[in-house]
Amino acid sequence: MDDFDPRPSDQFTFGLWTVGNPGRDPFGEAVREPMAPTHIVAKLAECGAYGVNLHDNDLVPFGASAAERDRIVADFKAALEDHGMVVPMATTNLFGHPVFKDGAFSANDPKVRAFAIRKTMDAIDLGVELGASTYVFWGGREGTEADACRDPREGIKRTREAMNFLCEYVRDQGYDLRFALEAKPNEPRGDIYFATTGHMLHFIETLDHKQMVGVNPEVAHETMSGLSFVHGVAQAMEAGKLFHIDLNGQRIGRYDQDLRFGSEDLKQAFLLVRLLEGTLGGERYEGPRHFDAHAYRTEDEAGVWDFARGCMRTYNILRAKARAFDADPQVRELIAEARDEGVQALTRSYSSENAAALRGLELDPAGLARRGLGYERLDQLMCEHLMGVR
Amino acid sequence: MDDFDPRPSDQFTFGLWTVGNPGRDPFGEAVREPMAPTHIVAKLAECGAYGVNLHDNDLVPFGASAAERDRIVADFKAALEDHGMVVPMATTNLFGHPVFKDGAFSANDPKVRAFAIRKTMDAIDLGVELGASTYVFWGGREGTEADACRDPREGIKRTREAMNFLCEYVRDQGYDLRFALEAKPNEPRGDIYFATTGHMLHFIETLDHKQMVGVNPEVAHETMSGLSFVHGVAQAMEAGKLFHIDLNGQRIGRYDQDLRFGSEDLKQAFLLVRLLEGTLGGERYEGPRHFDAHAYRTEDEAGVWDFARGCMRTYNILRAKARAFDADPQVRELIAEARDEGVQALTRSYSSENAAALRGLELDPAGLARRGLGYERLDQLMCEHLMGVR
Amino acid sequence: MDDFDPRPSDQFTFGLWTVGNPGRDPFGEAVREPMAPTHIVAKLAECGAYGVNLHDNDLVPFGASAAERDRIVADFKAALEDHGMVVPMATTNLFGHPVFKDGAFSANDPKVRAFAIRKTMDAIDLGVELGASTYVFWGGREGTEADACRDPREGIKRTREAMNFLCEYVRDQGYDLRFALEAKPNEPRGDIYFATTGHMLHFIETLDHKQMVGVNPEVAHETMSGLSFVHGVAQAMEAGKLFHIDLNGQRIGRYDQDLRFGSEDLKQAFLLVRLLEGTLGGERYEGPRHFDAHAYRTEDEAGVWDFARGCMRTYNILRAKARAFDADPQVRELIAEARDEGVQALTRSYSSENAAALRGLELDPAGLARRGLGYERLDQLMCEHLMGVR
Amino acid sequence: MDDFDPRPSDQFTFGLWTVGNPGRDPFGEAVREPMAPTHIVAKLAECGAYGVNLHDNDLVPFGASAAERDRIVADFKAALEDHGMVVPMATTNLFGHPVFKDGAFSANDPKVRAFAIRKTMDAIDLGVELGASTYVFWGGREGTEADACRDPREGIKRTREAMNFLCEYVRDQGYDLRFALEAKPNEPRGDIYFATTGHMLHFIETLDHKQMVGVNPEVAHETMSGLSFVHGVAQAMEAGKLFHIDLNGQRIGRYDQDLRFGSEDLKQAFLLVRLLEGTLGGERYEGPRHFDAHAYRTEDEAGVWDFARGCMRTYNILRAKARAFDADPQVRELIAEARDEGVQALTRSYSSENAAALRGLELDPAGLARRGLGYERLDQLMCEHLMGVR
Repeated sequence: MDDFDPRPSDQFTFGLWTVGNPGRDPFGEAVREPMAPTHIVAKLAECGAYGVNLHDNDLVPFGASAAERDRIVADFKAALEDHGMVVPMATTNLFGHPVFKDGAFSANDPKVRAFAIRKTMDAIDLGVELGASTYVFWGGREGTEADACRDPREGIKRTREAMNFLCEYVRDQGYDLRFALEAKPNEPRGDIYFATTGHMLHFIETLDHKQMVGVNPEVAHETMSGLSFVHGVAQAMEAGKLFHIDLNGQRIGRYDQDLRFGSEDLKQAFLLVRLLEGTLGGERYEGPRHFDAHAYRTEDEAGVWDFARGCMRTYNILRAKARAFDADPQVRELIAEARDEGVQALTRSYSSENAAALRGLELDPAGLARRGLGYERLDQLMCEHLMGVR
Repeated sequence: MDDFDPRPSDQFTFGLWTVGNPGRDPFGEAVREPMAPTHIVAKLAECGAYGVNLHDNDLVPFGASAAERDRIVADFKAALEDHGMVVPMATTNLFGHPVFKDGAFSANDPKVRAFAIRKTMDAIDLGVELGASTYVFWGGREGTEADACRDPREGIKRTREAMNFLCEYVRDQGYDLRFALEAKPNEPRGDIYFATTGHMLHFIETLDHKQMVGVNPEVAHETMSGLSFVHGVAQAMEAGKLFHIDLNGQRIGRYDQDLRFGSEDLKQAFLLVRLLEGTLGGERYEGPRHFDAHAYRTEDEAGVWDFARGCMRTYNILRAKARAFDADPQVRELIAEARDEGVQALTRSYSSENAAALRGLELDPAGLARRGLGYERLDQLMCEHLMGVR
Repeated sequence: MDDFDPRPSDQFTFGLWTVGNPGRDPFGEAVREPMAPTHIVAKLAECGAYGVNLHDNDLVPFGASAAERDRIVADFKAALEDHGMVVPMATTNLFGHPVFKDGAFSANDPKVRAFAIRKTMDAIDLGVELGASTYVFWGGREGTEADACRDPREGIKRTREAMNFLCEYVRDQGYDLRFALEAKPNEPRGDIYFATTGHMLHFIETLDHKQMVGVNPEVAHETMSGLSFVHGVAQAMEAGKLFHIDLNGQRIGRYDQDLRFGSEDLKQAFLLVRLLEGTLGGERYEGPRHFDAHAYRTEDEAGVWDFARGCMRTYNILRAKARAFDADPQVRELIAEARDEGVQALTRSYSSENAAALRGLELDPAGLARRGLGYERLDQLMCEHLMGVR
Repeated sequence: MDDFDPRPSDQFTFGLWTVGNPGRDPFGEAVREPMAPTHIVAKLAECGAYGVNLHDNDLVPFGASAAERDRIVADFKAALEDHGMVVPMATTNLFGHPVFKDGAFSANDPKVRAFAIRKTMDAIDLGVELGASTYVFWGGREGTEADACRDPREGIKRTREAMNFLCEYVRDQGYDLRFALEAKPNEPRGDIYFATTGHMLHFIETLDHKQMVGVNPEVAHETMSGLSFVHGVAQAMEAGKLFHIDLNGQRIGRYDQDLRFGSEDLKQAFLLVRLLEGTLGGERYEGPRHFDAHAYRTEDEAGVWDFARGCMRTYNILRAKARAFDADPQVRELIAEARDEGVQALTRSYSSENAAALRGLELDPAGLARRGLGYERLDQLMCEHLMGVR
């Protein structure tokens, strides 16, 4: 046990589907036995986690009877209580069953869309019953391989219709629940609508109850496309829309890997933790730190818990490093910005006077261009903090 | 001369910087002589183009005197008139001069930001003088390699400040001008803020005068990241925000290639033209079809005009194919959607009655899942239309 | 029925696993029922295919008894004969069973390696019994996520040991069989050894019986990494090592899509068919044209046969276009090369006299640089051939 | 000054073109003044480097007279001697001048090919005069955008002809020089022949004097394509073909970034240094550690030297970590392999007796599959070593 071992106050959560992943992939069979959700709750608590998240069918099998559902839920709630664990987030499985092969909210058949909305209503009820305050939407099947099958604008409109319907449903039930939309560019579909967190942030602005809808960015989903995850998360935070986050590891330009957090691209992981934790006194993300990842297929159950502890330890190590970096006087000196209040005042907001003054301002582009900015030194300092030699 | 040769009514435009590109790249020197803007105007007109677009410094050199500027502009306007060409779009070069090495609107130094805003004001004046109704912003230097140099949220805020300032400037001058923001994920910076059209669409929603701001998506910029360009453009169109478009060719996961339109990924090019032209009676994009591409470095000036004609011909060929595809009875049959007005009515908008009825609805997921959707046949039909064997 | 419908003389083959793919993926369950191999044989014959290929366990389940195996094989051979179909290629499933989770030939446990070699010996016997003359090796599990688990050089050495062993086995049995090695960069492992056809071609040069070993490049596997598939296949052909080929469709930087041939990147597909068919009288690939692809998950069985017909038709369409392109006088003129026999003679092979003459040669780099090469025109001609407007 | 500061015994080298890079890119002008080669030599020595490498035209301008060349070379040699620096590697610029726009060794015009070979002969003479023992070939222009311009097999044949010619030239001159071929998949060409180190390794096997030709892999060039650089280097080392190496940083799926070594993907950088330094007693790479990278465009000259020191420090830090990792008892336990000499003996080499014994061996695939391999723990240990918390 050291400083980096996780504690519930760190607010780390895992999905049932993450540590419960049996290791099946497109080319091979499962390597691990399914684990009972109640067992997962006990083990995660033992590892120092704060909570557990779930899709409806992670807990209650597709097509279960009401009685079966209630029994399962009661057992699960008892396990949560026994181990001091919470369920901060829930979501719907709208991708596993073949009925969703053409999409769920955006499918061409109105019956499929109706079924998807109804399944989500039930899953929202389940999530609220378990105490969730955030409800995630990942539309894994909402896309195409053969793009001629529908006008993409139709896919957008249908998704909006479903989201508006479900927002109203939540309001009508009096639930205290916020929605968090999760983007992914592709896989399992050739192209999925709303490919990035940026596209989702825009889509939210077109909803009837946009104030209750934010985003759930996932490291792997933006990284696949080679986008800066940190920039995307920053845009969501700046807009007050970071409602949840999915942490894991991924290499650019590959299948969805869902690797242990920090096991790929340590620098982006560092920058991300630094941003979530505030960056030099900036606003901090206050929600749970959720890991949407799974153990390698080489692992048995013991390896799964090694994996879970690894995710949490790496987060804590990076948090400590982020603080040390922000406190380093050399770093602070390098990022201390040029300030010129007079100049700033002119461009802060428009007036014809400001515009005229700006036109008259003495500015020396060649001189400004000559100044070295010390960013190589800054980045090397960051690397040395990251490697623990500073 | 055949049916596909371009005419001004096709509204094809090129940037001065595109056909004027001398073929310099990071590893080699220019292979073509610079061409006078007036010569470009004459040649493009001869090729069947409708207009020409420009950065301020494509026409007026950086640091030119007012007299020099006025003389150049007068000559250029004369050439436009002589050849019946227009300037529908203008933009600012905020990336070429070393003063912008740390960004323009988002640079850390307030003097650099002030200089960038002032340069844009002047360039807007120039664009309006030339008749432009759309003003494009591509922030090629607005990003980082060493991300610690600034909180990305700061980069967003500064860009917003600049955009708000410039919107007000346009309004104050009484210009009839709309802004179109162009995203790019990286190159020449390691990561550029607002990486995709989705991020830009969201950013626009946070501006003071968002109604005058839309997007200018570029094929190459979204394709680099492997995103579906068609889906991104559809989202912009659905939101009424497609103010301009940059057409070219690009392979995924590479340096910015700016290849001849249609020379890579013919299928996406087909789907794009189909979308811009309306797709089965849907809304059409009415603005200019702008090519932001350049000839291979293997070409002399004759090759440049081959390149320009190729861009325009391919667009016209694809437009004809899109119409034929949409008119093909087999296609129409395959994409005729299941309709079930009763079911649709339930999910179109929320009421507790609709929710209750939805809960009671008889739905058979297994049965719905079994239906084949014929998308392989549909996509093969599209390929055969594309290859001209149908 | 038209000119492009497939005939057995086209030598088109499919894997049992391709048309038999039930549509399971990492996020969803199977959407189609398993099909009996004998049914597949009948249907493929009906579609115009020439043959069918298989992994051992596509036909004989893992762990089947000898009697069961023999019965299955007999039924399958009867079906082949009934429908005039052949089995030109066979291969081993060394990736599906959890025993291979750490690799097969390169696994750390010698017992796993022994099991893999033995399974391959049995599968070779099966392949030969069915008449296969090519035996493919795709080492889907031969790689790592946690690269520290073994020195990659050890992985290479073990693979060489296995290949040498199996070459000797084939020789010892007197089989008339060639091996074809298939590379893939990643998926299902984080990184797979011998990432590209280039790496495989080199590895072959280090084997004891390299003359009996060639490559089986797959469109999707090289395209994932954004490499030119055509250049890789050309290198294999030039070295006499193209023993087999896997045709399908794939977008760069994505999960393994295995799409219908020609449904993505028509230009590369055209260039590939042109190369395989000889390119202006060059050497031709004479083996089967194998499709390693599967139908979209949206399809029922009818859609599977649409898919299969689509693969074959597109190949035939592109073959016709390649011939027309090569016969086009404008094309021939553009690619007619500068010839200067005197200069060529100097560099064809070294001698000190040639070196001296070369040093004295009058050459004008500036003049040579000025010539335009007409490649924009050439490429546009190719696009217009491809789109069927020329 | 600490343990990680570079010393000449570390054998660090830089290209003149790397620290001398003026910061010009496709979208912007140079930001730094050119530096005299003699100044670079002095400054690199001061930073702790061992040597400096060069293209012919980094030192001697294109088209310089013999007298000018001799004067420049004499001055440069004096600077080397003054500062105790060496030139271990030299190469030819076959990409900068427009004459090479269609390629150098593979260009369609035999005069261009002749010019390229002659230029290389002269540049080899220069390299040898400066003491180089390794000569690098990077064929930056050897490729295509319009692939129809030549059969790719022709490109391969021409390159072979040139390499054979130049090998003979070196032998004829009695030079003690080895060739190292450097692959790159694309940029500045759409696709470059011999896209990866694997393709180059195979090509070498087809040369007349293959023993004198090896590879010069570059981090950025393999990483662009998302390939495992470590696996590629391992294949070269295992074959005795790692003659030189180019170290830098790069993100997957982007333009050629040539970033400071270790500034991206620290884990791959760690694995690479570990491999080069021997990995648990394995064979070590003995040549110079060459950095082919350049400072950010935000830097002035001081930033360039920060950059250079950063490259070297990070290498030294990672070397120390690699040693600590290999010495960690927990690591050694985790990677201690299952040994079963009896089983290994059966598959090490083929005999019919071994084959029979292998067929009779008792093997339990289900049991073998059940064992967890501890790779999550191993990888986490590696991450914690890397972050310096272990």
